[in-house]
Amino acid sequence: MITLSIDAMGGDLGLDATVPAALEVLARHPGVRLILVGDPRGIEEHLLHSENSRRVARAAKNCRREKSSSETSASGAGSDAGMEKSVGNCPVQLHGALRDRLQVVAASELVGMHESAAYALRKKKDSSMRVAINLVQDGRADACISSGNTGALLATARFVLRTIRGVDRPAICAALPRMDGRHTYVLDLGANVDSPPEILLQFGRMGSVLVNCLENKPRPTVGLLNIGVEDVKGNDVIKAAAELFKRGELNYVGYIEADGIYAGDTDLVVCDGFVGNVALKATEGAAQMIMGAIREEFGRNLARRSAGLLAMPVLSAIRSRLDHRRYNGASLLGLRGTVVKSHGGADAVAFRSAVEVGIKEVQEGLVRSIENALTEQPDSVRVAT
Amino acid sequence: MITLSIDAMGGDLGLDATVPAALEVLARHPGVRLILVGDPRGIEEHLLHSENSRRVARAAKNCRREKSSSETSASGAGSDAGMEKSVGNCPVQLHGALRDRLQVVAASELVGMHESAAYALRKKKDSSMRVAINLVQDGRADACISSGNTGALLATARFVLRTIRGVDRPAICAALPRMDGRHTYVLDLGANVDSPPEILLQFGRMGSVLVNCLENKPRPTVGLLNIGVEDVKGNDVIKAAAELFKRGELNYVGYIEADGIYAGDTDLVVCDGFVGNVALKATEGAAQMIMGAIREEFGRNLARRSAGLLAMPVLSAIRSRLDHRRYNGASLLGLRGTVVKSHGGADAVAFRSAVEVGIKEVQEGLVRSIENALTEQPDSVRVAT
Repeated sequence: MITLSIDAMGGDLGLDATVPAALEVLARHPGVRLILVGDPRGIEEHLLHSENSRRVARAAKNCRREKSSSETSASGAGSDAGMEKSVGNCPVQLHGALRDRLQVVAASELVGMHESAAYALRKKKDSSMRVAINLVQDGRADACISSGNTGALLATARFVLRTIRGVDRPAICAALPRMDGRHTYVLDLGANVDSPPEILLQFGRMGSVLVNCLENKPRPTVGLLNIGVEDVKGNDVIKAAAELFKRGELNYVGYIEADGIYAGDTDLVVCDGFVGNVALKATEGAAQMIMGAIREEFGRNLARRSAGLLAMPVLSAIRSRLDHRRYNGASLLGLRGTVVKSHGGADAVAFRSAVEVGIKEVQEGLVRSIENALTEQPDSVRVAT
Repeated sequence: MITLSIDAMGGDLGLDATVPAALEVLARHPGVRLILVGDPRGIEEHLLHSENSRRVARAAKNCRREKSSSETSASGAGSDAGMEKSVGNCPVQLHGALRDRLQVVAASELVGMHESAAYALRKKKDSSMRVAINLVQDGRADACISSGNTGALLATARFVLRTIRGVDRPAICAALPRMDGRHTYVLDLGANVDSPPEILLQFGRMGSVLVNCLENKPRPTVGLLNIGVEDVKGNDVIKAAAELFKRGELNYVGYIEADGIYAGDTDLVVCDGFVGNVALKATEGAAQMIMGAIREEFGRNLARRSAGLLAMPVLSAIRSRLDHRRYNGASLLGLRGTVVKSHGGADAVAFRSAVEVGIKEVQEGLVRSIENALTEQPDSVRVAT
């Protein structure tokens, strides 16, 4: 049985996202227990509301099933009665099965989305984020998931859990979609600015372990993000990092440019957190602009709106392919515990993806594997941070 | 009369792009003269071919016009005769009018797309790129346009033309599309890696002059690219730069994140060249992936292909809105002469856009305006490079 602690109050939507996501995770993963951390009364209200929604949805599904099986004989009134019956049957069973694997732990404070990391660390010792991380440190949870403020989450996780021996700075790694429908993992996405070459090499090692763990790829290809593929390109840090990567044990394939992330040139792309965060946000901005242009052009006049209706299944397929919610869940790598950062604006679907990243990381023993990879290296380089 | 020198051999397509673009520019801008620099025989062949194509296109247009005006009386054979006549009439007129404002200057060498800047500078003294820049230095051309190797173009332009007093490093600035259909100008896009705060301030000043010149905006809003909008975010360089920008005379509005480029948060975004280049390439990669997904989804089966046919005008409108060729033409700022860098993969349409950026910069007196802006500043800061 795997146990995960959920910072139930974090993110823009808070309980509206985390509670329904938690119930969905419990329903899909019978071997998982969850601890929801936050305001117990709010959590309880949202649990009741979410359970009701699930019950009604399930009842409606049963109703449709019954209706279609008795389509030849039943009248409209008969199927309504069927719906009532299902609603009456579902809740006890659902309530019992999921609630057994769900625990609520109280936390009286909340870390604001724009609060400084230092302030959160010093002053918010009973925040839902802090308490959720403490549960991992105490061994009561195997992993923690939060949509909260990235800086505060990183600082708190680092302070409470500490870094793995051989790791100087934790990094944020996430999967980005690519042309062929698979993913490219990129790190660091914003935990560190000004990362020296030795730190970039650690990122490469941790990222390679993550790709192996989540994608079952024992020797993923690794590229260094640069502004050209030729040896002369880039700044001094990237050139020195390239020398370290060439000498190291990783499956290093050379420099790649930022468009290579989406072309799928390598399985893993390593970069400083400032650069990685800019690449990520530029992508989000460009994608939003393009999807906005599509909406606008299809809505321009009646003929185009009609074409848009016919093209609806295609547009939905495109949206679903690019849906960032499917890629939600960035891993905080290098800590003595599993922590997954969900996007601040995550809804229930997106938050569930992040929780499932955490489940997979625990199942695959990510932390232990990173520990092994980082301490086993004979040429492991340590730097002061 | 404005004269521009064209590196006719540069870019992936070379003469196939530059020569037809040059003829189109001459046809559209009666007050412009062009000097095509490169292999005279190749240029001549491409000129003849392009003139023929233009002639045939014009003849076909005339033919359609005649056909529609005499639709009630003329037979099919009659309109064919009309086409012959137009073809017969056009060439002399076209040839004369455009050729009068076109000159060819020989250059025996070509800078390869992956050649190092240092090698091009030392060894390729008779390259089409170098000769085209020399024409600006000699006062025979007002501006130079090239699709060639960025590093070589920058190094050669800097060596031949020198920088404006008060400018330590030239920067590359280009317009990127945004949600509202207008542009955001971003610099530096890759000329400099590791730009200190004082250099970023120079970029801000040069970029503001460019936006005013090309968009007629006397006090464009300026943002510093960062990984968050709060004061605590970013590295030491960006924080120190923010202090300089706050004290300076620019219309500085604070930090912006990379998605703000496309949301149109500011008119100008200032960043180091490594970061700017990554943002640009990430955008290109994401856009290509999305357009690829659209093509793929519309081609998946017969029903979708039919929907795609109906949606064709909309898809064309989207493509045209996002067409990078419309935004082609990055300005090399800070030099004592106007140099515009076209995308290496530019076709004739894209190359024409780049030439037109050059025309506008000369018309608006960009170089003189940057000179004034950079030398007039009482708190102008100079740094060793």
